Parts: sequence; structure tokens; C-alpha cells
Amino acid sequence: MKYSIIAIGDELLIGQVTDTNSGWIARHMTPLGWDVNTIQVVPDDAEQIKLAIDRAFAQTDVILMTGGLGPTKDDITKPTLCRYFGGEMVLDKEVERNVMQVMERRHLKLNEYTRLQAMVPSSCRVIQNEIGTAPLMWFERDGKVLVSMPGVPFELQGMMERAVIQQLLARFNDGEDIEFRTFVVTGIIESALAMQLDEFERSLPHGIHLAYLPEGGIIRLRLTGSSTDPGQINADMERLSRQLHELLGGHIIADGDKRLPQILGERLRELGLTLSTAESCTGGNIAHQITSIAGSSDYFKGSVVSYANEVKMSLLGVNEQDIIDNGVVSEPVVRQMAEGACRALGTNCAVATSGIAGPGGGTPTKPVGTVWMAAKCGDKVVAQVKQLPGDRDRVITRATLEAQLLLLKLLNEE
Amino acid sequence: MKYSIIAIGDELLIGQVTDTNSGWIARHMTPLGWDVNTIQVVPDDAEQIKLAIDRAFAQTDVILMTGGLGPTKDDITKPTLCRYFGGEMVLDKEVERNVMQVMERRHLKLNEYTRLQAMVPSSCRVIQNEIGTAPLMWFERDGKVLVSMPGVPFELQGMMERAVIQQLLARFNDGEDIEFRTFVVTGIIESALAMQLDEFERSLPHGIHLAYLPEGGIIRLRLTGSSTDPGQINADMERLSRQLHELLGGHIIADGDKRLPQILGERLRELGLTLSTAESCTGGNIAHQITSIAGSSDYFKGSVVSYANEVKMSLLGVNEQDIIDNGVVSEPVVRQMAEGACRALGTNCAVATSGIAGPGGGTPTKPVGTVWMAAKCGDKVVAQVKQLPGDRDRVITRATLEAQLLLLKLLNEE
Repeated sequence: MKYSIIAIGDELLIGQVTDTNSGWIARHMTPLGWDVNTIQVVPDDAEQIKLAIDRAFAQTDVILMTGGLGPTKDDITKPTLCRYFGGEMVLDKEVERNVMQVMERRHLKLNEYTRLQAMVPSSCRVIQNEIGTAPLMWFERDGKVLVSMPGVPFELQGMMERAVIQQLLARFNDGEDIEFRTFVVTGIIESALAMQLDEFERSLPHGIHLAYLPEGGIIRLRLTGSSTDPGQINADMERLSRQLHELLGGHIIADGDKRLPQILGERLRELGLTLSTAESCTGGNIAHQITSIAGSSDYFKGSVVSYANEVKMSLLGVNEQDIIDNGVVSEPVVRQMAEGACRALGTNCAVATSGIAGPGGGTPTKPVGTVWMAAKCGDKVVAQVKQLPGDRDRVITRATLEAQLLLLKLLNEE
Repeated sequence: MKYSIIAIGDELLIGQVTDTNSGWIARHMTPLGWDVNTIQVVPDDAEQIKLAIDRAFAQTDVILMTGGLGPTKDDITKPTLCRYFGGEMVLDKEVERNVMQVMERRHLKLNEYTRLQAMVPSSCRVIQNEIGTAPLMWFERDGKVLVSMPGVPFELQGMMERAVIQQLLARFNDGEDIEFRTFVVTGIIESALAMQLDEFERSLPHGIHLAYLPEGGIIRLRLTGSSTDPGQINADMERLSRQLHELLGGHIIADGDKRLPQILGERLRELGLTLSTAESCTGGNIAHQITSIAGSSDYFKGSVVSYANEVKMSLLGVNEQDIIDNGVVSEPVVRQMAEGACRALGTNCAVATSGIAGPGGGTPTKPVGTVWMAAKCGDKVVAQVKQLPGDRDRVITRATLEAQLLLLKLLNEE
């Protein structure tokens, strides 16, 4: 099933806000066999919205539309949809009651702007927004469906999961079975990977294809197959998964679409180990990534972000003379930081970073992007230095990833 | 000047990767008076790419195109552009030399896939990619311009800044002056803000408009004015800025498009104070935000991420009896965490969090989303509890913001 996405909002077009909704929708609809045809991002402008709808309906029967609603915007999208699908703007008592309840729950006063949210085109079927104030609107004409949803990410996500996905699946059902297999690959660049998989790719059966999804040091490989014969497609996918593992060996660090801190967490759990971090240049980002996983408190004890040298010495016990002799971005220092984290936070495992994120602080021998990192597990401590490209954000993000990969490698030797 | 953006890539349409390029381009072009008309995100598919170009050229004379290049994709976008603009695919010796240099710099071997990147349509003017291997291509026909750029964010950003923006400005110059004023607003919801600014908005002179850009607890207000008379527009903007300050008072925490950790950093610098954090539920994210600002080591000393209770006691000196009596998510505990951070890390100021990010761990009296936070500055310690909505990610993000706002408020009383 093909569909189109239209995201509305001036804030998206000046780049103040990034459109994460379209990606969320795609991630949740693709596994159900729903493929996005195109995404259009348009301003809060009646003419552009109408044009985008025309274009989308020319290619697909379903449009999922986000944004362009909300108290300061309600005067554009809704009347445009009303003109497009016919009818007039009417007060919806249910929506009004919902708006009042939401405002009350949030201890806010109802005002004229919020009250206007209860006006909807008479041509739509309203899906009550159980999370926020902007109503969801389902329009249908000549077999074509447009669902207008709020742009606030948690409202959109909540309501897609509670109502919209289910209603779309009930309305359109084409009986094709879609199978996915995702593999998380590291330690190889995209072009080298493509060469290694050249023959494999050319041997793929009809209806199955392989996608490369590189993102900052990790490449996700995704096999997609569609067929009306679920048994056959399933058997094919199993066989191809085994082949990929044979071809890529240790480069595959996980089966399934998992994030790195999740893979790490599962491994720590399996081994019954606990983790802490000692972070300088990554500034707490490794701890933040680790704790973004629900249940991480089972194995993660905490972190010392030792931005200042005094903190490296006082809390992590790094030797001052080693800092003087080798500099703070050095192997002895990160090793002692990892040891110190285990000691101070009472864990078996630790990961540590010390580097120059930039833009300042680089020297000819240690330019911006130089990052030392260490991982400790039981008695073993390993360390490595990386020269990471890009600006401050990119160095921090990449160092966060590389340090976790170093730890994962050590854990996989257990 | 109006332009269109086309982002190419299957990975964007299945939601595996979020299109951050379009936002980056918009943020950097808007202040120069270049407005995005629409953004289209399309798959690696010749027909869809052609259609997107037709649509974009129907509305604007300039298209900035990202992605669809790179070793495993080169067979679609480039030939499509070649058919669209004419000519044939030719080997560009300069590009080949550049590809070889980049590979050498990265200590990688040249292979058949990377070599193919040196093939370009004869109808384009190549802009050498000084950062990566995919060449940038400038196409021009009947006064219309299309620039094809790599989708890797740091390559795109680097090359826009080094070459593309400058060349676009030189090629199109319409002599209109654009002025912006951005204000960072907190402590008021969008609809209440809209009511408060209703009269102000209606009194805006022709050519000046106000945009609301809400994002997770912060609303950015942006005044945009365009005119051929720079003096007039500048005077208008000054007057309107003053009016906004009079109307909103303390709700405006900064003039200019600044991020919260930047505002905090500037204030700490002004006051000559140092900062540390003690984080439980935010898991290091506050430290990560603070250290995302270049030069933050001048005032930020470090953090103790005390995920486990033992760490709260051992490193931050939280009293065990207080944890037993009040629970770990409580006012006495966050106050002691803030005190402990100042002591352990040797700073004047600290911010601390303890809460339930979920999905597990909630109780009837302390449901998921309950977050206690404290801020300390000199002798003063303030604490507050917030009931934050949403899933784990959202609670962490929002708690990170609210804790920083609490500290900022305290600092502004200094």
C-alpha cells in the first residue's frame, strides 16, 4: 500500500524545527507493508497546502497530514481542508468537551484560541485527541482518504498508535505479506560493504531487496521481501540472513533494528555485569545514551563527567604526574579514568573518553578530533585513539559511538 | 528569493534516517532572504526524482537537492539529472583525483564503487567536494538552477558554507533587505502567548510578520521584515523589539536565536561562576547539553550521574535515612544532590534531578513523569517538582530543560 505524507508548518521550512514526524510515521507504517511515496513539507499557506494535496492524490489514495493545527494556526489548514472536501466549519461539542478536559488536566485556563480548536469541517469524521487539544480529522472522498493530525510529536505518535494505524489497516487491506530483516553492521565503509555484497545482491530472488542505511559509523542493512506466500518469503529470508552472517561475520553486531546502547545493555544483562562511565570530551553523552534505554538501571550505576582535570584526579584518582607527562588526552589518563570509574561507582565494567572536541584546544600533535577512549571489563582494560572528523557535535557523537563499540568488542570476548 | 528543496533517499522514506539537511539549509539561507517554498522527500527512483524536479521548477527557479549520491546509489540520481539536463555521463579527471585524495586521507583503498563517483553528466559544472567523495553538480537551463549535493550532513554543510551559498548569492541578487529578531520565551503556553500578543500582531506594519515556533517548553518568537529601505526596517524592528519586551517581561529569557545551555553559559560567564550537575533521571543529558557549547570548560567542571542510590550516597553524600524516609524522588534528596555536586566537583553552582522517566517505576503518589529538581547558587538552593507528560525520551528531554530553566531563574536573581 502506497501513501503520501504532507507536513505543514512555517517552522519546518525555516529550519527552526526538524520534521521528525514523517520519519516516525514511516518507521511504524513500513513494517505493516505501507510505503511512503513522497513526503512534502509545505508552509502554513492555503494555496500550497491545496497544491500538495492535489500532487499527493495524483499518486496515492492515502495522505497522512501532520501539523498546521494548533491555537495560532487554526485559521489556515482547517478552512483549506473544508474547501477541499466540502461542507462548512461547525462546532464539535465532543471536541469542545475534550479541549476543556485537556486544559483542566494541565491546570490551564481555557481561552478564545483554544476554544476555536473545537471548530471542524462538517465533511470530516473526528477522531478525538486523547492527549492534546487539536482534533484529528478523517476525510474521505471517491475512495481517497486524508487524515489530518496534530504536529506535536507526542500527540501524533500517541494517536497514531491508539487509533489511526488500526483504522487505516481496517480500511485498506491488500493481503500481501511483508517480511523484514535488519542487521547492524560496523567496522566497514559503505563502498567496501557494497563490493563484498555485490554477488549476494545480484543473487537475490524476485521480490526481495537489500538497502544500505548508513548513519554515523554504523550501517544498517535491511532485507525487505513481499509476497502473497508467507511461508516462502519467510524461508527465503532465513536463508539470506544466514548467508549475510557468513559473508560479514563479526561486522554484524546485532540482528534486528537495535540501537547501540540497547545492544550493549542486552550483552551486559546476559553476562550479569554492571557499567559506569568516566567522560571528558563526551560530556555525559554516553551516560545519556545508555540511560535512554528503559530498564538500564539494572546494569548502569552512574557516571563521573570529569570535564575539569581536578575532577579527574579527585573523583577518578587519575595521577597528576601522568597528566603532566602525557597530557590529559592520552592513553594512561583514559585507562586510569576507566579504572577510577569502576572503583568510584562500584561496577565491573566502565568506558572512558578524553579528547579534543573543538573548535579550540587542538595542537599540531593532537589536532581537534583526537579522542582517546578506554573500556574495562573485569581485569581487562583496552584503549584506542581515534582521529574523528567534523565539528564539535560530530566529534562528540562519533566518540560516544566509538567508545561504546570498544566496550562491546571487549564484552563479546567474554 | 524563493527556492525548493528536494531530499533524495529511500532511508528517509522508511524513517531510518531523519532529514536534517533541509532544516540546516533553511536555517542558513533564510537569514539571507532566501525562503524555502516546499521541501519534497523522494525515494531513489528516477521517475519520482524527475517528477519532483518538474514540480519544484513549476514554482521556483532554484532547486537545492541533497542525497541520492554515494557509492551504492550513484546509478539513479546522476543519470536522471543527465537525462533531464542533457549531455552524457563523462569521467571528470578532477573529481577522480579528489576521490583518490579523500580515500588516501582516510587511509582507505580505492575500489570500483568509489571510482564510479568520478562519472558526472557533461551538462553540469562540478563543484569539487573538499570533504568527501561525491561531487557537487551545478545545472543551469533557461535561467533555472539545480544544485545537486551529497546527503552526508557534514559534507553538505561544509560545502554549502565553503562554496554553494556564496555562488547562489552571486548568481541571484534582488536587493531586498531582510531583518530578523528572535526572542526565546518560556513560562507561557502558545495560546496564552497568542492572546497576549493579539493587538501587537494586528498593529504590525506592512512587510513585517511574527511567527510562533514552539518546541518542548520553549517558544521562539521571530519577527521577520523585508524592505528595500534598510534604515526603515531596522528602525521598525528596534521599536517592535522594545514593545515585545514591555509586553512579555521576564518571559523573554534571551534575545536572538540561542539555545538554553548557551544562555546559561553566557550568564555563568558574566557572573564568574562555575557549574556542576548531579543527575539521576536525566542520566547525563544536562551535562551533555551544557558541554555541547564550545568553551563550556571555562565554567563547567563536571557531573556525577548517580543512577544508583549507592552513588548518590557515596559520591554526593546524600543521607541514607532521607532516602528511606522520603524516597529517592524527593525534595531532600535533590537538594542534597545539588549540595553534594558543588562539594564533590568544587563549583559555586549546581543543578540536580531525581525522577521517574518510565515506563516502569511509577507509583500512585509518584507516577511516571514525576521529577524533582534543585538548583544551587552560592548559599541559595531552590527545588521544585514537575509532573512531566509523555514517554521516557520526552520526560528526560523535558526534565533536562526544566532543570536548566530553574538554574537560569536563580542566576537571574543574582
